[in-house]
Amino acid sequence: MKALVLERQRELSLREINLPSAVGHGMVKVMVDTVGICGSDVHYYTHGRIGPFVVKQPMVLGHEAAGTVVEAGTGVSAFVAGDRVCMEPGVPDLSSRASKLGLYNVDPNVTFWATPPIHGCLTPYVVHPAAFTFKLPDNVSFAEGAMVEPLAVGLQAASKARIRPGDVAVVVGAGPIGILVALAALAGGCSRVIIADLVPEKLSIAQQYPGVIGVDIRHKTLGGEVAAVTAGWGADIIFEASGSPKAFLQLFDSIRPGGCVVLVGMPIEPVMFDVVAAAAKEVRIETVFRYANVFDRAIEMLSSGKLDLRPLISRTFSFDESVIAFERAAKGLPGDVKLQIKVDP
Amino acid sequence: MKALVLERQRELSLREINLPSAVGHGMVKVMVDTVGICGSDVHYYTHGRIGPFVVKQPMVLGHEAAGTVVEAGTGVSAFVAGDRVCMEPGVPDLSSRASKLGLYNVDPNVTFWATPPIHGCLTPYVVHPAAFTFKLPDNVSFAEGAMVEPLAVGLQAASKARIRPGDVAVVVGAGPIGILVALAALAGGCSRVIIADLVPEKLSIAQQYPGVIGVDIRHKTLGGEVAAVTAGWGADIIFEASGSPKAFLQLFDSIRPGGCVVLVGMPIEPVMFDVVAAAAKEVRIETVFRYANVFDRAIEMLSSGKLDLRPLISRTFSFDESVIAFERAAKGLPGDVKLQIKVDP
Amino acid sequence: MKALVLERQRELSLREINLPSAVGHGMVKVMVDTVGICGSDVHYYTHGRIGPFVVKQPMVLGHEAAGTVVEAGTGVSAFVAGDRVCMEPGVPDLSSRASKLGLYNVDPNVTFWATPPIHGCLTPYVVHPAAFTFKLPDNVSFAEGAMVEPLAVGLQAASKARIRPGDVAVVVGAGPIGILVALAALAGGCSRVIIADLVPEKLSIAQQYPGVIGVDIRHKTLGGEVAAVTAGWGADIIFEASGSPKAFLQLFDSIRPGGCVVLVGMPIEPVMFDVVAAAAKEVRIETVFRYANVFDRAIEMLSSGKLDLRPLISRTFSFDESVIAFERAAKGLPGDVKLQIKVDP
Amino acid sequence: MKALVLERQRELSLREINLPSAVGHGMVKVMVDTVGICGSDVHYYTHGRIGPFVVKQPMVLGHEAAGTVVEAGTGVSAFVAGDRVCMEPGVPDLSSRASKLGLYNVDPNVTFWATPPIHGCLTPYVVHPAAFTFKLPDNVSFAEGAMVEPLAVGLQAASKARIRPGDVAVVVGAGPIGILVALAALAGGCSRVIIADLVPEKLSIAQQYPGVIGVDIRHKTLGGEVAAVTAGWGADIIFEASGSPKAFLQLFDSIRPGGCVVLVGMPIEPVMFDVVAAAAKEVRIETVFRYANVFDRAIEMLSSGKLDLRPLISRTFSFDESVIAFERAAKGLPGDVKLQIKVDP
Repeated sequence: MKALVLERQRELSLREINLPSAVGHGMVKVMVDTVGICGSDVHYYTHGRIGPFVVKQPMVLGHEAAGTVVEAGTGVSAFVAGDRVCMEPGVPDLSSRASKLGLYNVDPNVTFWATPPIHGCLTPYVVHPAAFTFKLPDNVSFAEGAMVEPLAVGLQAASKARIRPGDVAVVVGAGPIGILVALAALAGGCSRVIIADLVPEKLSIAQQYPGVIGVDIRHKTLGGEVAAVTAGWGADIIFEASGSPKAFLQLFDSIRPGGCVVLVGMPIEPVMFDVVAAAAKEVRIETVFRYANVFDRAIEMLSSGKLDLRPLISRTFSFDESVIAFERAAKGLPGDVKLQIKVDP
Repeated sequence: MKALVLERQRELSLREINLPSAVGHGMVKVMVDTVGICGSDVHYYTHGRIGPFVVKQPMVLGHEAAGTVVEAGTGVSAFVAGDRVCMEPGVPDLSSRASKLGLYNVDPNVTFWATPPIHGCLTPYVVHPAAFTFKLPDNVSFAEGAMVEPLAVGLQAASKARIRPGDVAVVVGAGPIGILVALAALAGGCSRVIIADLVPEKLSIAQQYPGVIGVDIRHKTLGGEVAAVTAGWGADIIFEASGSPKAFLQLFDSIRPGGCVVLVGMPIEPVMFDVVAAAAKEVRIETVFRYANVFDRAIEMLSSGKLDLRPLISRTFSFDESVIAFERAAKGLPGDVKLQIKVDP
Repeated sequence: MKALVLERQRELSLREINLPSAVGHGMVKVMVDTVGICGSDVHYYTHGRIGPFVVKQPMVLGHEAAGTVVEAGTGVSAFVAGDRVCMEPGVPDLSSRASKLGLYNVDPNVTFWATPPIHGCLTPYVVHPAAFTFKLPDNVSFAEGAMVEPLAVGLQAASKARIRPGDVAVVVGAGPIGILVALAALAGGCSRVIIADLVPEKLSIAQQYPGVIGVDIRHKTLGGEVAAVTAGWGADIIFEASGSPKAFLQLFDSIRPGGCVVLVGMPIEPVMFDVVAAAAKEVRIETVFRYANVFDRAIEMLSSGKLDLRPLISRTFSFDESVIAFERAAKGLPGDVKLQIKVDP
Repeated sequence: MKALVLERQRELSLREINLPSAVGHGMVKVMVDTVGICGSDVHYYTHGRIGPFVVKQPMVLGHEAAGTVVEAGTGVSAFVAGDRVCMEPGVPDLSSRASKLGLYNVDPNVTFWATPPIHGCLTPYVVHPAAFTFKLPDNVSFAEGAMVEPLAVGLQAASKARIRPGDVAVVVGAGPIGILVALAALAGGCSRVIIADLVPEKLSIAQQYPGVIGVDIRHKTLGGEVAAVTAGWGADIIFEASGSPKAFLQLFDSIRPGGCVVLVGMPIEPVMFDVVAAAAKEVRIETVFRYANVFDRAIEMLSSGKLDLRPLISRTFSFDESVIAFERAAKGLPGDVKLQIKVDP
């Protein structure tokens, strides 16, 4: 099968590769329509690794996918050929202790598309467990269906925050994930979200959504803005989505007593953390690892009209342009939020 | 001072009455601008009592109020004359065990406007604790400010549900509180709210808000509608806002496994309750008594633009028309959601 | 294989029956040592049904079992022959929506030993999924291992209550489940548990555990006792474990503002429920359906010495005496808490 | 009035000092019987400051006190002269936003005994709000009553962890607070607590309590011990009670997927924090600032017999020996857990 293969760091090819095609018990075969490019895909391309996960052999990229079921294996009653779907890329051992607790994302044995050595989905057909495949309602396009995965990250962060209706949140960092966290927080019950970045284009994109207040931290302090919006009380929730070590030391300045900080960004090295500042406000800190049990919620958000992510799809490339698409993504243009590849012509 | 006085069941007069006017420590004096009429006000008027609370002596009605601070007592630093405000009508003993826990609404010693024998706020000036007075931002009108109290009921219900982003909720009953619960649930993170009633006018009013799906239960079953919307899984949350005994027996038919039922409506008599049906899905049941710590959140919802309650203000009467306003309210016209009295000409 | 078979209502026989013996993928074969008799086993014997579950064909009884692994199927790495174990009798579809959420006990497709038409474990060998099989530490006997299942019910109730350290709880009903709920609540963080019943023998058994306060409600009121213990504040948690309709109407008299009621007992018919009384204290009501994710916790409680259930094992019968054991159980002697059958001689 | 006064760093005197003695509205006057010496008292003595709190003028030390009510102010109905009590040393503004939320400990305006410039309680009489005064049952001695305050810290930590019955916890650091956290965690629902330190005397004291497993980290690794106890799964909860920067980097090695870390120890400087390690297990991190709403729970734990803290009272000094007591405390002898001063002869 043809696929976008990362041969090694900085070397991509669109070529034939042997991929499993047998549709086993509980599995479905999906004709891939659209795949989004994620920062992690790009990072494997540019660095050949993410932390302990090293690309040691050619690996198909891509994990944000929507398409059409073409075959359902034995034991699958929820899908028939023709169903439009998107897929959750992480597959745990459902009989593990973590999975039985509902925490399947932190099952130590989870496998995940395009995390070495597991092949991703930038290829015309994939075989996937039905339990991690989700129907798309008619009013959700494939392009939107391929946005469900990054939105799921935002929703996981929003869920962990345990938003109470009317909370004011801060998101530090207006990259693609920061914006999706902001939108998930708003859709998830926040009244307003203050998003901080130093790139005006990113703030402009975020601010097109009602309820989002952009703060250009080159010209304003985040603390000052939060104090202004909350009459000095502080934000109920802060989502750290920049991964910047500098952001960590100031995290607790803008939070209210008893507030919650959700760590979404992943700094490469350990960061400095001011325990006393956190404790003085009895802050709760939540961490996020991918997501669990939110794909159906993400689809609901899109289908109900509560969230419209189409303005975030910056450009769509054909499958043949896949390498070009990755080169563009690697540039990290400030106006690019999500680049997608339309696999199915 | 002039006030709308409930002399006894079915007898209202707009007359002079002696009310406390000294502005004690920690108190503010507020010139009342607008007061909404609540179902409980009407119930005292038509029945002379609500359960154990009996009108035994003349009592000023009204507990949904917004106005302007005219004087601040000693120890009050948060307000100055001229501040536009709304007031939380329940005043607990803040040093009680319940209050220290953050549950001041269930402090046994709480007093509440227009709950016998406590006078309400349908009078040009009230004196109230600063701690239960809230500033209105410039973009929130007095009319909206007087909606904060009923919205607070909705937000309390939504908070108790512990909504997770993307939940699908049901509201049984499309009266004023049912509609406000539905809107609070949507603003508070639900993707869709199915609201059930048998009065088409009420459903029409509710359905003007995106995300609200009305079900006329004279022609459709609630269970069928929920199954259709949730692909058979069931609603994550059901808010019972009808108080109808009949609704209680079917509550658990439409809930998903592990879902939550919030009891907002207050049936006069004990109702039949199917423990086995609730347990088979391990349903959590929450109850609501007024509200605590949500006035600031309600104001945020209005100020941020997340919620627009102006379409729910059906008609506004002058202070002189107060008795007429109550007579209208007592009719319970299906198109009337909220009637308000503009006290300050 | 020989087994204790419920032929039909009121007719038991210890006889040969065909049971599956193939050890499939992910399964273990266990030589059964000890099986406890549960109220539900007895109820099937005496009534031939529990609610919608009707015994229509011969069924092996028993679902509280401990034994020794004799064979492990393919894909099983956690067990080897010789491992001492106990088994969780409910087996869900782990790929269902409920299971993925961690709520596998309310998966609509769960099967459960000795719930028609599924055979139970009163037979020398059973085949069971490894994922629902748990190792017994050396210091936990088989007899105690067979107590893990009923203790799990108590722990599920205690978990649902979300006990805060030092809570005072009430348990209504001192039957086997009531006592196990009381012990789980104490081990789970309560400082004291008031247990109410009208059978002195049951109260005596419960009161042998420190922290348990028995109330004979023939001579004292529960409300009075709770008020005395809590200085009038009320109990933090009430576990309803009697299933008595009468108990339901008084449930909210003894609870504190903001307290929690956990419904463990299953009244056969719908009961009267005082919504206003519950709401006036903003009570949270939790329901319990069997258990999920607590077997390991139950074993920990026994192994760590935090809970000693041996005083609750009233008498042990041999496998040959199984019918006699059930006849004794059917008498419901007040001094009998748990009767067990030693299957393996 | 005579009092133990910290004149400045390293200078204590037992001398007359002017202290308020008027018993205002809502206040009680208490004859102090016993006062425990806390690490923070000692730290003010040895360093003259704790972080931003600097001793700039003579200050009475002590904040762990029990005694007898000798006078009750107006508005106090809960106490009469002769009542045996202990006192919660932090007094918030009960009308603040944080207090109304139940988070009075993080009210920015809270005052606290023996935190500059507020005088403490090492003096024969104190005047204190009735709302922060708690009756001692007859079976709780003054010495135990003076242990309620440090136990409250442990209970706050245990409450924040949201223990589920049967959890296995780790406590890093076996100082007085570490030991009280361990005991609170056990009483609060944990089955076992592994406590780590490098001072054998401290571990010996902790291990006299059933359920506590000491680990001498000079000879064993904490990770290894946790793996052994939990069969490789990890601890459900880790309480960091050492304040050691080194401990922070390894915090996440021993936690289970989805576990909780509670930060009790306060490192003076910011520490290195491995976000990726925490996120990989989706760890929740809670912080603790003193306590709120736990004094009554602590008294319940002592009165019910669930916790016996008397073995932790290492030595009792007379009021005249107060300076000697502080000198002893400043030595930090490994066998000393709690030193107390009996103020009332």
